[in-house]
Amino acid sequence: MAIVTLLTDSGESDHYIAAIKARILSVNPGLTLIDISHHIASCDIAHGAFVLRSVFRDFPKGTVHLVGVDAMGNRSDLMVASQVEDHFFVGMDNGLFGLVTEKAPQSSVELNKISTIATTFPERDVFAAAAAKLASGVSLTSLGPPLLQLKRMTDRYVKATKRMIAGHVIRVDATGNLITNIPRDAFETLSKGKNYVIQFSGEKIRKVMTAYNHAEQGDCFVLFNSLNLLEIGIYRGNASALLGMHYDSPVSILFEE
Amino acid sequence: MAIVTLLTDSGESDHYIAAIKARILSVNPGLTLIDISHHIASCDIAHGAFVLRSVFRDFPKGTVHLVGVDAMGNRSDLMVASQVEDHFFVGMDNGLFGLVTEKAPQSSVELNKISTIATTFPERDVFAAAAAKLASGVSLTSLGPPLLQLKRMTDRYVKATKRMIAGHVIRVDATGNLITNIPRDAFETLSKGKNYVIQFSGEKIRKVMTAYNHAEQGDCFVLFNSLNLLEIGIYRGNASALLGMHYDSPVSILFEE
Amino acid sequence: MAIVTLLTDSGESDHYIAAIKARILSVNPGLTLIDISHHIASCDIAHGAFVLRSVFRDFPKGTVHLVGVDAMGNRSDLMVASQVEDHFFVGMDNGLFGLVTEKAPQSSVELNKISTIATTFPERDVFAAAAAKLASGVSLTSLGPPLLQLKRMTDRYVKATKRMIAGHVIRVDATGNLITNIPRDAFETLSKGKNYVIQFSGEKIRKVMTAYNHAEQGDCFVLFNSLNLLEIGIYRGNASALLGMHYDSPVSILFEE
Repeated sequence: MAIVTLLTDSGESDHYIAAIKARILSVNPGLTLIDISHHIASCDIAHGAFVLRSVFRDFPKGTVHLVGVDAMGNRSDLMVASQVEDHFFVGMDNGLFGLVTEKAPQSSVELNKISTIATTFPERDVFAAAAAKLASGVSLTSLGPPLLQLKRMTDRYVKATKRMIAGHVIRVDATGNLITNIPRDAFETLSKGKNYVIQFSGEKIRKVMTAYNHAEQGDCFVLFNSLNLLEIGIYRGNASALLGMHYDSPVSILFEE
Repeated sequence: MAIVTLLTDSGESDHYIAAIKARILSVNPGLTLIDISHHIASCDIAHGAFVLRSVFRDFPKGTVHLVGVDAMGNRSDLMVASQVEDHFFVGMDNGLFGLVTEKAPQSSVELNKISTIATTFPERDVFAAAAAKLASGVSLTSLGPPLLQLKRMTDRYVKATKRMIAGHVIRVDATGNLITNIPRDAFETLSKGKNYVIQFSGEKIRKVMTAYNHAEQGDCFVLFNSLNLLEIGIYRGNASALLGMHYDSPVSILFEE
Repeated sequence: MAIVTLLTDSGESDHYIAAIKARILSVNPGLTLIDISHHIASCDIAHGAFVLRSVFRDFPKGTVHLVGVDAMGNRSDLMVASQVEDHFFVGMDNGLFGLVTEKAPQSSVELNKISTIATTFPERDVFAAAAAKLASGVSLTSLGPPLLQLKRMTDRYVKATKRMIAGHVIRVDATGNLITNIPRDAFETLSKGKNYVIQFSGEKIRKVMTAYNHAEQGDCFVLFNSLNLLEIGIYRGNASALLGMHYDSPVSILFEE
């Protein structure tokens, strides 16, 4: 049974999500629907891209990911379906897909061209049917004319030299933990045999932990999380609130000679 | 695989929703369960009816809709199952079903009569089994004695003359957009060849847009939405907060001679 | 089709829940996934245990319950799978399971021993696969070495004498109703032929109702709810806010001679 995931900024107090699901099941009642989240902050492409990037590879190859975050996009944005890393993505090409992976799409098409639908609700009226068809084995190329490339947005990058890594917070999760864009491999390469100090919001930490519960209650800790990204937390506390740190707050690691 | 949808005001931090689902799957583990919403405002029949009315026809005919909004109702309210427009509705006859469609039921029965269950949790103890049976092909008439009519509540209507349409906001959605009860067809009939002005909260708008993204960021816009109802929004802003408009706020359209 | 339920304190705005589900479906795509709640208060074992205790028996025997509440636990806590009352429970043995039922486990094993995984996300990396295997018919004993007992926490008990029952609030539900730990059977045994008065927050109530809607709007009522526990509410109002009562607030019943 093929899987269609849903990721939107629609919340759950309206009819929107159920309308999308009804349309998918009308095309193929045997599909498995999995909600990734409907609580992406309104029109927040960075939040949506972070969540999708963090989880899409956990699903089996061939899974179809329907995205309705900032689903109206800008006036010139196109409705697309794209195959990347053997997964399918369906939604508005507003830049979100370009942030999900750095791999080039295997193939992309423009939707709503073969038979055009005027709509203010593309998730239901265009994306749902396209996603259901892809999950049912219909070929991507039959859904619309080919598209040479998707919109690319520049994500903020980590700067790394021999003496330091400078990154920033890319997500405050629901418990207040601060996820940065500093990857484990860069840290491991540069820290070999050296002392280091991790700096953020006036704190200086000299040790990366390996488990959340190695901290004492109320202690600030840093570790590489299940995404292999540096994460800052306060054991059984809200790190964002207690440290005054938010999306984009700087975090750096200095290596001693 | 038949579908049972769920619509409640129970929230998602308690055991209530899972208890209803467990009971449905105990009757027939092969049913597909789709949450419409569990975030209907507590006992808000108008909110529940709006959401159900906006989406039930997107589901395949024969779908069963279990409703637990104000599920205890008033003392004289009956537990019912009803077939309307080839869909099934199961819940307390507290007036909500009468607001979902203006079509007369094809058939209705009173539940909890053939074998009576005293319960403070009818969604789990009565509605779940009835919904599961209907979705499994059991006939409506076998579930209880026939009921001649459901409770009717008067919904607020739009007033339309040659010179104006006067309506009001019937739903503020999660993003703050204001959905009115002014239907597209009334507007199109009356506006032919005429200039018009749409008035609300001190604003005067002289153009209906056709897409959300035709507005500029921060602009107020009106359009006919995917329900064919006039909707007021602020592009990438919260119209309810910024315009000070809420459920029941008046909106009118004046047509010039 | 076997059922796996999920109960976590992860919220729904991150990738965590979808990552767990993806891993379960990767082991067995035919499993039915049912969310109990992802809105347990962060690390609140009492809240999680209350919800799970209130609903697990509504599911068919053999159902697997994956729990990710305070999922990192304390440093010495073990990852476990346990069979109790013919249901399976998978998660961190942080005391929650010991609060779900007073029945002794039929069998328990320690996970993450046969092949060890170092992880900061045990719900995805250890519990998901264990739950999926159990739901697919793999034997509990093949998942790890036997464990003689689970952690036990002492729950607060009700005190009952011939003259009074003294209990307290164990859950404020999403509508503000106050669920106590006073069971129906103790009340029925002690109240036979006697007048009684139920006291809490300055209120004195002399009658237990049998249905929520027997109260008038704004009235305070008490009844035995669908869990057979004494529940205090205000008809169409928020009892917690209006009575100033919270988790652990005392409630007592005095019986007159």
